[in-house]
This record gives sequence, structure tokens and C-alpha cells, in this order.
Amino acid sequence: MPTVIHSTLRAFSRTIFEAVGTPPNIALVVANSLVDANLAGHDSHGVLRLPGYCGSLRDGDIVPDARAALIRRDRATAIVDGALGWGQPAMQLATDTTVELAREHGLGATVVRRCYHVGRVAPYVETVARAGMIGLAMSNAGPGVAPFGGRQRVLGTNPFAWSMPIGGRSDPLTFDIATAAIAEGKLRVARANGRPVDPTMLVDRDGKPTSDPNDFFAGGAILPFGGHKGNGISILAQMLGRSLAGMDTTGFDGPRGANGPIVLAIDPTCFTTAEEFATEVAAQAMQICSSRPADGVEEVLLPGEIERRTVHHRLDRGIPIPDTTWSELDELARSLGVEMIEGGIEVEA
Amino acid sequence: MPTVIHSTLRAFSRTIFEAVGTPPNIALVVANSLVDANLAGHDSHGVLRLPGYCGSLRDGDIVPDARAALIRRDRATAIVDGALGWGQPAMQLATDTTVELAREHGLGATVVRRCYHVGRVAPYVETVARAGMIGLAMSNAGPGVAPFGGRQRVLGTNPFAWSMPIGGRSDPLTFDIATAAIAEGKLRVARANGRPVDPTMLVDRDGKPTSDPNDFFAGGAILPFGGHKGNGISILAQMLGRSLAGMDTTGFDGPRGANGPIVLAIDPTCFTTAEEFATEVAAQAMQICSSRPADGVEEVLLPGEIERRTVHHRLDRGIPIPDTTWSELDELARSLGVEMIEGGIEVEA
Repeated sequence: MPTVIHSTLRAFSRTIFEAVGTPPNIALVVANSLVDANLAGHDSHGVLRLPGYCGSLRDGDIVPDARAALIRRDRATAIVDGALGWGQPAMQLATDTTVELAREHGLGATVVRRCYHVGRVAPYVETVARAGMIGLAMSNAGPGVAPFGGRQRVLGTNPFAWSMPIGGRSDPLTFDIATAAIAEGKLRVARANGRPVDPTMLVDRDGKPTSDPNDFFAGGAILPFGGHKGNGISILAQMLGRSLAGMDTTGFDGPRGANGPIVLAIDPTCFTTAEEFATEVAAQAMQICSSRPADGVEEVLLPGEIERRTVHHRLDRGIPIPDTTWSELDELARSLGVEMIEGGIEVEA
Repeated sequence: MPTVIHSTLRAFSRTIFEAVGTPPNIALVVANSLVDANLAGHDSHGVLRLPGYCGSLRDGDIVPDARAALIRRDRATAIVDGALGWGQPAMQLATDTTVELAREHGLGATVVRRCYHVGRVAPYVETVARAGMIGLAMSNAGPGVAPFGGRQRVLGTNPFAWSMPIGGRSDPLTFDIATAAIAEGKLRVARANGRPVDPTMLVDRDGKPTSDPNDFFAGGAILPFGGHKGNGISILAQMLGRSLAGMDTTGFDGPRGANGPIVLAIDPTCFTTAEEFATEVAAQAMQICSSRPADGVEEVLLPGEIERRTVHHRLDRGIPIPDTTWSELDELARSLGVEMIEGGIEVEA
């Protein structure tokens, strides 16, 4: 498996986006979103998306040089129009606007309309946390998940994320999940490897629990995480995405990765001092990660800890690119007349 | 099992609260919180709490005639001081304040300090929804839950709830869960009945999965729902409860039911019209509950649907009171010189 230094992958991704008509400053934002996801170990939101993104563009679902714009600002809230362009710059504008709103009002919330895939959500809520606030974001998405007790694809994988400053370290405490029991990307990997999945995660087209990932692609559905409880978190994201962000998943025929996101910020200095807030988050975090692990578990991890460690590892050792992804990137580069990354730097298998 | 009409149970509970020194208007609020939980089928938050509530009072942890007060209002946010009184009137004040804040700013958020048990959370977010807004609430609580991968009681059962208006029906769409895999009250019931529980819900004091509810009471811990994903929702509530509401669960020695709650409101008219919002929530809800059920499931239910049906049933048929609860209430009434409910009206077993 080729392994590539992140900066090489960033430059390559930017070149791809520019080759399809994306202005350089926007290409930079979208490329960084993908490569940052790879760095964090979430390859499902990394450069393997490049062919799909460019496919949506060829299908006419994306306007590569569209500029997201703030179209409404009403007291502590705002609406950004993604203008059918790439989702990342639209979500970044929504995030920056939310921070401004929360500075002014103590709270802020922004939705994005006409929004393509925003990529991994963690970096947006981390932007809020780096501004000293509590960030919260969720989104609906095209259908792929059955509601609890169901068999039809009605819900999206609907991400839910939060981040907040924590004393004693430079990066915030961050949590970012899909409310689906398993990501579609992981089902693809399991199918490719001929491996079963946990049967609580999937139903086949007849609504029967199944461990065969092929059953999903034959008309089955992923289930929400955590039974009826995760179901209710997913439905919250579903409702806000449709009703506030205007992303219609009913009879959905838009691009595969479309999102209806909302990002919220709470300024903790309305309730305490910034220092006290960060100190108390750190105290609770310490209580969690220094608590005794369950039998057979090495250590109790904080949310986002695996990602932090993966970032450190991959910054040093490079990002491994599976051979299938590598071939797809090679083909994409060829079709656009872009030079493929040289063979891949085999830092570590 | 005796079955009691809700109005009889309300009157009895009010009399109990008044007998321990609670002013009539506060006694009404606390009594209604408990009986409304019984009506919704959540007996763990119903009148079985009366002996525990009065126990906290005898221990000097509760000031029965304390008045909750708004102590800070800063732009879209506020802080209520529960003043060590009953939690329900404090949380109701926080909720009403949040609605006012959101009317003014588009968003609102209020925390409660020095707060005893707020009872079931759903009614508060429903108050926000009845005012035409999206309500969101969460809270930390005294330790009883191990973090994902752990064995020690570090987290609380930490409730998470939301509610929003939905077109075509009078009561809002509501979701209200404990982020623990199982309520401590349900473990008590399983223990009393000698029944095992799902071993993914519990670890014993050695951190081993167990299906024996006795292991919890012998120093084990409940686990969060939904693995690391539910864990992260619980930690959000834990962090906000400690850092914003000031409820310290580290080295906690306060009354058993203490909470550190936050309630948020989003005014949907900042983004769309009230009618359009409710219509689109109803459309998504219809898509969910009219979707085909999984094999062996009768119908796909919306969040809060079981509770709605239970309320209708119990309004008509009365609230069943388990014999052990009945004896405890009888003993409590005797100790306070309050007349016990007459024998229980046996409407239906």
C-alpha cells in the first residue's frame, strides 16, 4: 500500500480541484478537508472521495466556482447559501459566522442551504472551540439508514459533533460521529475483504438482521447506532437539516453527498470565566481517562483521542492509500491531465 | 397492584410536599412532575421518588421553601439559582426564561446552579416546543455510569432531550433519554424480580460484562448506551453540567438526585416560517412512521410515541402502583401524618 506525505496529497488534491474549474482559494479549502480527514484516520472522508466529488461535478450537481454567501442574518442566527458549490467553504463561512454571532449574542447558530458534502464535521466544531467556545454541529444527508424498527432507507448517516476548549493542551476536546451504526465506506471495505459485520448494524431488504455487507448494497439498510436512543439523535439532525437548512431528503434526487448542516456556538464566558471553563473541562476529562479500564481494556480514552494519535502518527509516517483508491486517483488524474503522485513514498506499510 | 387515577395521585403528592414544608405553589409543580412521569410510563421518575425526595430533605440537602431565582441574564443566556430547593420549579423558571431569551435573540440558553433533581426532562423541552421553538436540554448527574472502556462510576445517567412543534397534531414531537444503557430504577426492578439484564449494559466491580443486576449494587457500573458514540453524548452533558451549571460530580457528596441542567431554544422563524417548519417536521415524521417495519416489528414508531400512548391509556385507566412502592408511600404518609390514598382504585390490574 503506497504511503504519501500529507503535503504531497494536499498539493495533488488542490491540483485536481483546480483542474475541474475550482478557484485556487476554494480548491485549497476542499483539498485540506479531505487530507485532514485522512490524517485523522477517517479515510472514508479523505481523498477516496475525489472521484465521487468530480463525478457529481460532471453530473452537473456542483458548480465548482460558486461562492457561498451569507444571505440572512437575524439576531443570533444566520443562513448561508452554499450556491450549489463545494460544501466545505460554505460550512467554513457558516462556522466563522456562528463564532461572530456568539461573540455578539452569547449564542450563535447558522445553517447552510443548497449545500454539497461538507466533509468531516470535526474541523468546524474545532474552529468554534479554538475561538474559546463550545461548538455543536449536526446535519442530515441522503437516505441510507432505516429508522429504529424499520427496513427502509429514510434517514441519512446524519453526523453529530461537538468540541470545546480544554485546559492544559492546545487542541480542543472533540467528538464527531455518524449516527448510523456503521459508515457506508466501512461496509464497502468489509465487502471488498469478504468480512462479516456486526448483525446489529444492518438489515437486508426483507428487514432481517444480517452480517453480510452485500445485503446493504442489495437494497438493505444500515441501522442507527444504539437502538432507539441513537435513532432519536439521528432524527434530531434529520429534522433540523430539512426544516431549517432546507435539505429535502424526502424523494431525494440530488447529489449523493448533499448535506443540510447547522452549526451552533455557546460562549462559556456568559456563565463562567474562560479559564475556569477550560480548567473544569480538563478536571472532568482527567477523571474519565484516569479511571480504571474494564477487564481486557488497556486505557479509557477521551472522545477524539484515537484521531489525535492518528494525526501525530500520520504527520510523521505519511498517509497510507489503499491500492484500489490509488488506482482510482491515478485514473482520475489521467482523465484530467494532472500528474499523478510519483509512485507513492513507501515510508511504512 | 393498586391502580390510581392521576388526579388522586397529584393531590396525595402535593399533600406530602406541603407536609414537609413546601409552599403550595411549589408543591403543585413538583407533584405534577412526578405524576406526569407516571402518566408517560416512566415510573422511575414518578411517585416512587417521593420517599427519596423526602429523605434528601431530612438529610438537610433540600430547602423545601427555597425560591429559585434568575441571578444573571447576559444577552441570549441566563443563569438560574436553584437555591438548594426542589429542582422542578428551578428548571421551569430556566425553561420559561429560555423561551423569552429566544424570542428576543432567536436563540436562548439557561443553566441552573445548586439544583436538586429536575425530574423527567421531556416536559421542559415540550414547554419550549409549545412556544413554537425547538427545545434541547441535557444535564449531568451524580456518578453511576462508567465511561466507554471503563469500570468506575464517573459519569451520571445524564439525560438528553429535544422537542419541536409538528404539524397536524397538538402535542410536540419529543425525545428524552438517559445516556446510560439502562436506568438504575430498571436494575432495581430486575434485581427484585431475579431477572438478568443485557450484559452489554453493565460491568461488575472487576470491569467484566455481567447480566446480574446485583453486580451493579456490589460496586459495578452501568455503561453508556451505544458504545463510544453514546459515551460522547453523555460526556457532552457531563462537561456542560459541570462547567456551565457548576454541578460538581468529581468527588461528589451532594444529594443523590442532584442535576446540572442546561436548556436551549432555537426559534425556527429565524430560518423559515412557523407553518413551514411544522409542516416539514410532519412530512419527515410521516416518512419515518409510514416506512416499512423490520421483520417481526409491527410498526415504526416516532420518538415519544410509546409515551403518548401510555399517557392516553393511563389518563383513562389510571396509574398502576407496584406493591413495594405502595407500601413505601403508605409508610411515608404515616410518618408525616398524611392520609394515605384509600386502598387504591382497582380500575385495571
